Amino acid sequence: RINPERLWDSLMEMARIGPGVAGGNNRQTLTDADAEGRALFQRWCEEAGMTMGVDRMGTMFATRPGTDPDALPVYMGSHLDTQPTGGKYDGVLGVLGALEAVRTMNDLGVTTRHPIVVTNWANEEGTRFAPAMLASGVFIGEHDLDFAYGREDADGKRYGDELQRIGWVGDEEVGARKMHAMFELHIEQGPILEAENRQIGVVTHGQGLWWLQVTLTGKEAHTGSTPMAMRVNAGLGMARITEAVHAIAMDHQPDAVGAVGQANVYPNSRNVIPGRAVFTIDFRSPDLEKLNSMRARLETEAARIAADLGLGIEIEPAGHFDPVTFDPACVAAVRDAAERLGYSHMDIVSGAGHDACWINKVAPTAMIMCPCVDGLSHNEAEDITPEWAAAGTDVLLHAVLEAAQV
Amino acid sequence: RINPERLWDSLMEMARIGPGVAGGNNRQTLTDADAEGRALFQRWCEEAGMTMGVDRMGTMFATRPGTDPDALPVYMGSHLDTQPTGGKYDGVLGVLGALEAVRTMNDLGVTTRHPIVVTNWANEEGTRFAPAMLASGVFIGEHDLDFAYGREDADGKRYGDELQRIGWVGDEEVGARKMHAMFELHIEQGPILEAENRQIGVVTHGQGLWWLQVTLTGKEAHTGSTPMAMRVNAGLGMARITEAVHAIAMDHQPDAVGAVGQANVYPNSRNVIPGRAVFTIDFRSPDLEKLNSMRARLETEAARIAADLGLGIEIEPAGHFDPVTFDPACVAAVRDAAERLGYSHMDIVSGAGHDACWINKVAPTAMIMCPCVDGLSHNEAEDITPEWAAAGTDVLLHAVLEAAQV
Ligand SMILES: NC(=O)NCCC(=O)O
Ligand SMILES: NC(=O)NCCC(=O)O
Repeated sequence: RINPERLWDSLMEMARIGPGVAGGNNRQTLTDADAEGRALFQRWCEEAGMTMGVDRMGTMFATRPGTDPDALPVYMGSHLDTQPTGGKYDGVLGVLGALEAVRTMNDLGVTTRHPIVVTNWANEEGTRFAPAMLASGVFIGEHDLDFAYGREDADGKRYGDELQRIGWVGDEEVGARKMHAMFELHIEQGPILEAENRQIGVVTHGQGLWWLQVTLTGKEAHTGSTPMAMRVNAGLGMARITEAVHAIAMDHQPDAVGAVGQANVYPNSRNVIPGRAVFTIDFRSPDLEKLNSMRARLETEAARIAADLGLGIEIEPAGHFDPVTFDPACVAAVRDAAERLGYSHMDIVSGAGHDACWINKVAPTAMIMCPCVDGLSHNEAEDITPEWAAAGTDVLLHAVLEAAQV
Repeated sequence: RINPERLWDSLMEMARIGPGVAGGNNRQTLTDADAEGRALFQRWCEEAGMTMGVDRMGTMFATRPGTDPDALPVYMGSHLDTQPTGGKYDGVLGVLGALEAVRTMNDLGVTTRHPIVVTNWANEEGTRFAPAMLASGVFIGEHDLDFAYGREDADGKRYGDELQRIGWVGDEEVGARKMHAMFELHIEQGPILEAENRQIGVVTHGQGLWWLQVTLTGKEAHTGSTPMAMRVNAGLGMARITEAVHAIAMDHQPDAVGAVGQANVYPNSRNVIPGRAVFTIDFRSPDLEKLNSMRARLETEAARIAADLGLGIEIEPAGHFDPVTFDPACVAAVRDAAERLGYSHMDIVSGAGHDACWINKVAPTAMIMCPCVDGLSHNEAEDITPEWAAAGTDVLLHAVLEAAQV
């Protein structure tokens, strides 16, 4: 079993970097706080006897050697970047839990046939630079490096430039590494495990996703002196499409969600009818048919709404992955570990996207989830108990040791 | 008659300060560009033989002396501040038209019994610091100076501090000046004069306004892993209230308008259900009963929408004025001047708020409007012809000379 206090101390120490405004974190991708978090993680890895490699996307790979020079490594990890008003555990538990697993192997003097690699995937959240899971997406060849380097944040700063600025452009070719297997521990970010009173979620599937960025073009005009009939109000179009997103998700219940998370009107002045609105729709379902049906219906309804109001409309995908089925052998290794350790568990579908969802396309992959209080995540109030963190990390350790062959 | 070329040249020279991105201007209140515009205006006034006074709100008053030391001045002017994506004429025509009227009096050697004062009212637009017409509102005692100094922009910068920063805190007590009468020339910002093919709008009334700032409080949560039934989506609430604003305005037709110009969700991240939304509603009508009925209905509907979604709601007035009836004698002076000069004219209601609407409460006041292309304003594409500008300024000159007694 892992050392729960050491794990918790490391989680709390990392949480001091990039503090939020309400007890959580703002350690967004490629900010100075991200660089500081990376440096701390690197120091911890080196203290645990691991060797750090960094690829050209800035993903960090810390290796603990195995005994067989020909055996491919077993990977475990998640991400250290956070939402702008994010929690202390989303991603971080998966990275520092993996580090704790290695520290425990060191304590016990365990050796494995396969090397073990602890990973911090770059830009998982996708808030500053869309899409989410960008570095793992490049790793598997879903995106190319130029595409990723050209992603812009809200201020027009590019991923490639910001990675350079914080000094974390590595020399490894992205995706050159081959994997024996990969395991990701993550908080659930939903309410099911807590409601069902289970310590461990054995993740069998992941939802698919469509992010659609909508740009509506109307006509800036005076809110007071422009007659109602002459208005071409992009903000009103955004409101109607936001309502349509909700209605479409409700019509696809169960196993479907939809919302608009990012919403901007221009020039955003109290007495100007918005001449432009730019916003992102997030649709998800574990059912590919429902996922695509939601997108198709949205495109039809949004076009009608825009036409009714005289608005120009452009809809561009800003992120996409199909529903995921994780590797049955890896999933079984997680389930067996939970069983062996005596933790209550259940099979679960991941509501969020994770780097594991991409890696699953190139290597046998599975995920372990632990509960979070009230299912709350992407909120500074996100919370877990030290016991939940320890149980998830124990299962991670055992599943990885089985895959890496003690 | 005034000198149309000189007027147009001055308009074009002022438009070079704080250029926009699409041919218009971004010379928002108390920015460096505002300071530069003020300095140019001051130089022009001094070259025209006038003496500049500045009050503690930063409003500029340039005086041309009269012959009777006991006669109160006749005021004319408007504002030099603009929207973030504003036009070259909104406000500016009223200030530089007034300057041109004085230059013409100088050319002709005209003297008047009453002094004449050309005014640049501070913070008319209300975009950076709400409410609009802030300095004229303090001038008439509608707001007090502390309230005005404490107004904050989106970055939390305060009016008082920014006025100090740009070096335009004057020493005159705000509102100490007494007026014989006040005339404001302004572009219509609506489509009526152009559609009716009239050169001059004789403004008899102004619409009343309610600005309501709404804050909705929901719960930030993950867009993927949070079941639909658990969401408390502040962005969805904003969408429904935006639609309600539109429906309420449509139900109060004719003589009523409504829109949401400023709209922000937090944390504004693609994969976070908005936990907070802050937006401003703009309702207007020339009919006091309709104006108040729109506000009342909105408050009822917004409370119901918030309750349906489990959202906290706060609605705060962010600006208000009742419909205005301008002074009959001043209005008649404008109409007579247009008639005398042979300009086609019609009576019109101002759709926008203007400093004249406040000043009308403390002194006999009227407004002159000239057409603008397609009725478009609060848009960088705002346009007028030199002939329209000249006709409006001729009428301003004649109405003021009549009031000031040649
Ligand atoms: N786990 C997580 O929050 N990932 C961000 C990508 C997503 O929105 O699902
Ligand atoms: N004229 C003008 O645009 N004034 C700004 C205040 C308003 O919104 O009416």
